[in-house]
Amino acid sequence: SRSLNLAVIPGDGIGQEVVAEGLKVLSAVLPQDVKLETKEFDFGARRYHATGETLTDADLDALKAHDAILLGAIGDPSVPSGVLERGFLLKLRFAFDHHVNLRPSKLLPGVATPLAGQPEIDFVVVREGTEGPYTGNGGTIRKGTEHEVATEVSVNTAYGVERVVRDAFARAQARPRKKLTLVHKNNVLTFAGHLWTNIFNKVAAEYPEVTTDYLHVDAATIFLVTDPARFDVIVTDNLFGDIITDLAAAVSGGIGVAASGNINPSGDFPSMFEPVHGSAPDIAGQGKADPTATVLSVALLLRHLGYEDEAARIEDAVSADLGERGDLPTRSTSEIGDTLAARVAG
Amino acid sequence: SRSLNLAVIPGDGIGQEVVAEGLKVLSAVLPQDVKLETKEFDFGARRYHATGETLTDADLDALKAHDAILLGAIGDPSVPSGVLERGFLLKLRFAFDHHVNLRPSKLLPGVATPLAGQPEIDFVVVREGTEGPYTGNGGTIRKGTEHEVATEVSVNTAYGVERVVRDAFARAQARPRKKLTLVHKNNVLTFAGHLWTNIFNKVAAEYPEVTTDYLHVDAATIFLVTDPARFDVIVTDNLFGDIITDLAAAVSGGIGVAASGNINPSGDFPSMFEPVHGSAPDIAGQGKADPTATVLSVALLLRHLGYEDEAARIEDAVSADLGERGDLPTRSTSEIGDTLAARVAG
Ligand SMILES: CC(C)[C@H](C(=O)O)[C@@H](O)C(=O)O
Ligand SMILES: CC(C)[C@H](C(=O)O)[C@@H](O)C(=O)O
Repeated sequence: SRSLNLAVIPGDGIGQEVVAEGLKVLSAVLPQDVKLETKEFDFGARRYHATGETLTDADLDALKAHDAILLGAIGDPSVPSGVLERGFLLKLRFAFDHHVNLRPSKLLPGVATPLAGQPEIDFVVVREGTEGPYTGNGGTIRKGTEHEVATEVSVNTAYGVERVVRDAFARAQARPRKKLTLVHKNNVLTFAGHLWTNIFNKVAAEYPEVTTDYLHVDAATIFLVTDPARFDVIVTDNLFGDIITDLAAAVSGGIGVAASGNINPSGDFPSMFEPVHGSAPDIAGQGKADPTATVLSVALLLRHLGYEDEAARIEDAVSADLGERGDLPTRSTSEIGDTLAARVAG
Repeated sequence: SRSLNLAVIPGDGIGQEVVAEGLKVLSAVLPQDVKLETKEFDFGARRYHATGETLTDADLDALKAHDAILLGAIGDPSVPSGVLERGFLLKLRFAFDHHVNLRPSKLLPGVATPLAGQPEIDFVVVREGTEGPYTGNGGTIRKGTEHEVATEVSVNTAYGVERVVRDAFARAQARPRKKLTLVHKNNVLTFAGHLWTNIFNKVAAEYPEVTTDYLHVDAATIFLVTDPARFDVIVTDNLFGDIITDLAAAVSGGIGVAASGNINPSGDFPSMFEPVHGSAPDIAGQGKADPTATVLSVALLLRHLGYEDEAARIEDAVSADLGERGDLPTRSTSEIGDTLAARVAG
C-alpha cells in the first residue's frame, strides 16, 4: 500500500479555513490504498509573537521528512512587513531550492473576469523562485538619515536561469500550442537581461517545435489585459513573475481561484503548494474565504507526486462548480469544500 | 514678446510622424506673441548606425540650451536591445536629472478599454526617474560560461526618494480627491522598501489633508484592473513605475493616448516630454500611428512651462476628438493632427 506523507501549514487568517477544505478534498479524491498522513505545523504570526521564531533549522528538518507541503497563507498586520515574508516564506523557498514557481492561469467558463468580452485564457507562468531581486542581497547605510542609501541586488546565475528555462521549455513542449514567451526587461537590466536572453536562445535550439517569443515586462502587462490568449507558457524572473502572476490571476477569475506550486523538480526537498492569495485578515474566521485556490493547489500537489488522474478529477470538479456558481446562492468556505469533495468522490 | 525654444527629437519609426503632428498642434495653440523656435536633433537608430554615437557630451550641451524637449520614440530592431535605451533614453534622463517621471491616466468618455463596465479612471503616476534598478549598476562575471553571474543593483537614496515623494504629495494635495498611494514591494525588497516607506510616512505628516495608502506592486496590478477608480496619485520607484504605467495606459485607452513627462522641477536642465509608446517599426511610415499621445505630451510640456490655458485647450480638444471617434471612419496620423490643430485654434 502507498502512503502520502504531507506537511500542513495552515498559517494565518483565512489560511486555517481554506487548508481544512483542501484536506477535505484531498481525502475524498485519494485512492483507498493510499494512506494519507498529515502533520500540522504552527508557523506564522502566532508562533512569531509567542517565540520570536519564524522558521528554525529544526523546523526545516521536520518539514524535510515529508513528500510535500500544503500551505494556506502566512502574514498578519500585527507583524512588521517583511518579517514573515523573508523569515518564513522566502526562507523556505530558498532552503528547499524551490526554483520552479508554477502558476497556471485558466479562465473557466462562467467565471467572472474584469476584462470585457470573456477572452480565452489558458497559460502557465514558470517563475524562477530562488534568485533575482528576491535573494535578500543588498543593504542600507546611514539608515534614517538624509544620507541613507539602500541597495537591492538582483543575483542571476547561469545555473539558476538555465534550469528554470529548461523546465519551461519542457512544459511548453508538452502542451498543444507549444509556445514559450520569455518576459524580462533586457533593454534596461542589460546584465541580467543578456544572461536570460542568451540562455533562453541556447535552450530554444534544442526545442525546434516550440515557438518562442520575447516581451519586456511592461509590454507583457499590456498583453495580459488586451490579448491574454496569446500566452501559452511564460518563463520569467522572480520579481517579474510575482507581478505578472497577480495580474494574471486578476484577469482569469481572481486570486480566489489562483493556485501555485513551489517546486523542486529534483525531489531533494519536498515541494510546497499554496494559493496565490494572502491571509486576508479582514475576512478571516467568517467562513467567507473561497477555498478553490487551495483545492487547485492540492491538484498541483497531486500531479507533482504522480497522481495525474486525481489531479484532473479535482480540476474538473472545480470547473463544474465554478460554471454553476452564477445560479447559486453564496456558499460558505466549508460548503464549497463539501461540494468539491462530493464531486471528486462521486 | 515671449519665446519657446524647443529641442525636437523625432527619433525612430513612427516617432517622425507623431512629432510632426505634435508640433502642428503646438503651433496652433500658442499665443501669437510667443515666438516658437524649434531645433531638430537626429538621435536614434540612423545616427547610431552612421556614427556609432547615441548621445555625446556635445549633444547634451546642445540640448541643454532649450526650454524643453519633445521626443517621438527611440528604438529599432536593427540595434541590439539596450544600446539606444541605455545609451540614449536613460542617459538623457539621468544626465538632465529627470527625477519626476509623470504619467497621467484618464479614461475619456467614448474611449475603448479592455475592462468591462467602463470604470472611472483618472489618476497620475509619479515614477521616480533617476534611481532604483535603472542606474545601470551591476555587472557580469564569467560571461557566456555555465558559471556566469549577472547582477543588477537597485540604488535608492534618501535624497532621491524624498524629492520625488514630496513632488507626489504636492500633486496629491492639489487634486480634488487628495489621495496618494505608495507602490513598492517592501515585504521582499526590505532595504529599499524601508527607505521608501519611512520617507513616505515622514512627508505624510506634513500633508494632513492627503489620504495615504500603501500597496505592494503585485496587488497594485490587481486593483488597476479590478478597481482603477481607487487611484488618485501613485508614487513609486523607477521599475515598478515602468511596469504599472504600461498597464495603466492599457486600461485607460491604450498606449496610443498615453503621455509622459520626464521632469526636472528645479529647471536646471530642460524637461523632456514623450509618448509612452515606442517606435512601432511595423507601422512606421504608413500614416497609421495615432499622434494623440504625442499631442497630450505637448500639453504636459506647455503646463510645465506655465501655459496652463493652452495645455487645457489641447486636453479638451483631445477629449472631444476621442469622444467622436466611434462614429468616424479611421483617419491618418496627419488627419488626426489636423483635426486637433483646428480644434485648439478655433
Ligand atoms: C508574500 C510574498 C513574499 C510573495 C512573493 O512576493 O513571492 C507573494 O506575493 C507571492 O507571490 O507568493
Ligand atoms: C524604453 C525604456 C528604456 C523605457 C523605460 O523602461 O523607462 C520605456 O519602457 C518607458 O517606459 O519610457
